[in-house]
Amino acid sequence: MANQKKVQQNTILDIAEALKLSPATISRALNDHPHVKEKTKSDVLKMAAQLGYRRNNMASGLRSNKTHTVGLIVPRISMFFHAEVITTIQNGLQKYGYNLIICQSNDSLDMEKELTEILLSSRVDALIAACTLGTTDFSHFDKLLQNGIPVVFYDRVPLTEQQATIIKGDDFRGGYIATSHLIETGCKRIAHISGPLTSNLYQDRSAGFLKAMEQHKLPVHQNWIFHQELTHANAREAMRKLFDADVMPDGLFTDNDTSAIAALEFAREKGIVVPAELKIIGYSNDPRTSIITPAITTIEQFPDEVGKKIVETLMNLLKNATNVTNETIVPITIPVQLIRRMTT
Amino acid sequence: MANQKKVQQNTILDIAEALKLSPATISRALNDHPHVKEKTKSDVLKMAAQLGYRRNNMASGLRSNKTHTVGLIVPRISMFFHAEVITTIQNGLQKYGYNLIICQSNDSLDMEKELTEILLSSRVDALIAACTLGTTDFSHFDKLLQNGIPVVFYDRVPLTEQQATIIKGDDFRGGYIATSHLIETGCKRIAHISGPLTSNLYQDRSAGFLKAMEQHKLPVHQNWIFHQELTHANAREAMRKLFDADVMPDGLFTDNDTSAIAALEFAREKGIVVPAELKIIGYSNDPRTSIITPAITTIEQFPDEVGKKIVETLMNLLKNATNVTNETIVPITIPVQLIRRMTT
Repeated sequence: MANQKKVQQNTILDIAEALKLSPATISRALNDHPHVKEKTKSDVLKMAAQLGYRRNNMASGLRSNKTHTVGLIVPRISMFFHAEVITTIQNGLQKYGYNLIICQSNDSLDMEKELTEILLSSRVDALIAACTLGTTDFSHFDKLLQNGIPVVFYDRVPLTEQQATIIKGDDFRGGYIATSHLIETGCKRIAHISGPLTSNLYQDRSAGFLKAMEQHKLPVHQNWIFHQELTHANAREAMRKLFDADVMPDGLFTDNDTSAIAALEFAREKGIVVPAELKIIGYSNDPRTSIITPAITTIEQFPDEVGKKIVETLMNLLKNATNVTNETIVPITIPVQLIRRMTT
Repeated sequence: MANQKKVQQNTILDIAEALKLSPATISRALNDHPHVKEKTKSDVLKMAAQLGYRRNNMASGLRSNKTHTVGLIVPRISMFFHAEVITTIQNGLQKYGYNLIICQSNDSLDMEKELTEILLSSRVDALIAACTLGTTDFSHFDKLLQNGIPVVFYDRVPLTEQQATIIKGDDFRGGYIATSHLIETGCKRIAHISGPLTSNLYQDRSAGFLKAMEQHKLPVHQNWIFHQELTHANAREAMRKLFDADVMPDGLFTDNDTSAIAALEFAREKGIVVPAELKIIGYSNDPRTSIITPAITTIEQFPDEVGKKIVETLMNLLKNATNVTNETIVPITIPVQLIRRMTT
């Protein structure tokens, strides 16, 4: 009995330790991964036999020891939307007996790559990720998937087909209803402060903006469209350009609330009357938008719904771990909603 | 060699187990702590010799495998102060090649205990913790200390003597200068919305409040003092009680900005003119306080200074791991500053 118990406890980690290789390498070797040298594969198989390692131990996800810990990588925890999603996820996971480990990529792709390694070696049972604005190659997540660790992407998600579950807000519709609302309240000259087009978020919100403009046959001025990091300073700079020109916009759609707040403050300083001379709509329903005077019209993204859907999806993946790489293709979309306040 | 290796691995935990004492007691005994009985000290030294325990083992932190990962436990990442501290810590650690894993206790002591286990088994090299409001026994952190993993507490820190480094804001002075400012601007009837007295934060801010009141010989009304969870709803309820009474306060000091915002909104709704009829001062310099109209006077806690000091201290501890259990007694205090705005 004692002996059998010992056999059952031997994991990839034990093989890794014995051979002074990373667990990821052991896993790849056992899976006959093409990037692993034949010599290494043979060493791993020998050590696996010697330690009594049994492939079946790993039945559900190549690993026998579940840690009941889920890892999460997010650009910045201080962003209101992410902080809310994280809180909902953590409360949801807790009901199922799972804990959450949170890491910030600081919007750095190198950091994001490193964090996937750290979370893998921390032996998380699953990973949730909102990617950096610069993440266009998602292959650093593959090693988790290959280790049977489900990955759920949310918000900032792979643009290419990826063998992972995707949960996102309806950004196209968000851009569309925001712009339509400006048009319906009388705007004819609409500017758009958007994020980098490398990200699905700003591609989709921009497409929604353009669709509404086209439907209402309004002209789109290229110098009224900004694709930039959505910081307070950048939004002020964009406003300066917009209001230094001969023809000024009468409507502004910003892809986050920080930019909307910066625009409102700029307008206040310059004596531009909001909403009479300029209507402003932001994105995310950050609490600051309801505290500022005038309160800012914005798009609600329902972070709690996003968080709940992530937990629900993740629990299904963990229950049916065999299908990790299948139920992947169709993204799950969370509806958005216009919150009308005093700037429109 | 094999034998020697085994000897080197004997730690305080082994001595603790052999003597059925807590690791904290063993550590104190080895450090000749005055609170440990002489008999215990002698037992510990004997067992240490018997097990071949060597003080020098602590040199590198008792563990050979460094992960270059630091764990952090915080009540809630969405609190502005903590989000800022975390960002500074992460940027600081990165310069030294360390990554940060963040966990939320959600202000639950059970969760905090569980997270110390998780971070220990994730093999973090060090731990940073801001405790829950209900953490009065800190023994769940001992197992990290006794594994040679330095622990730095900040903000919400142990009230009792603890063998870990403590970094905190000058909460006594914060409470004192906030209250003194209200008095200097003419307030005679000052209310205080504070947090639970189980926490060092609210003990110290309350002591500062009382000191200023006493110095100026102002009466302290017990029904104008609230010790409660510092939520928006609780602050509204406190305001309702304060302004339902025959004699109303003319000054209000709240121990966080959420309560100050709730109080300002309540005053606005009831037609109480701020600052003419009621002066309000909050705590933390949350960005919302400068966005709201009128902008709220508050106490700046310099989260970036707190974060920098945490990193600096942690790096010293990691470099000189011999002294993990020594440089512990005097807390490091970060100054605070009054930010005067329109509510006073």
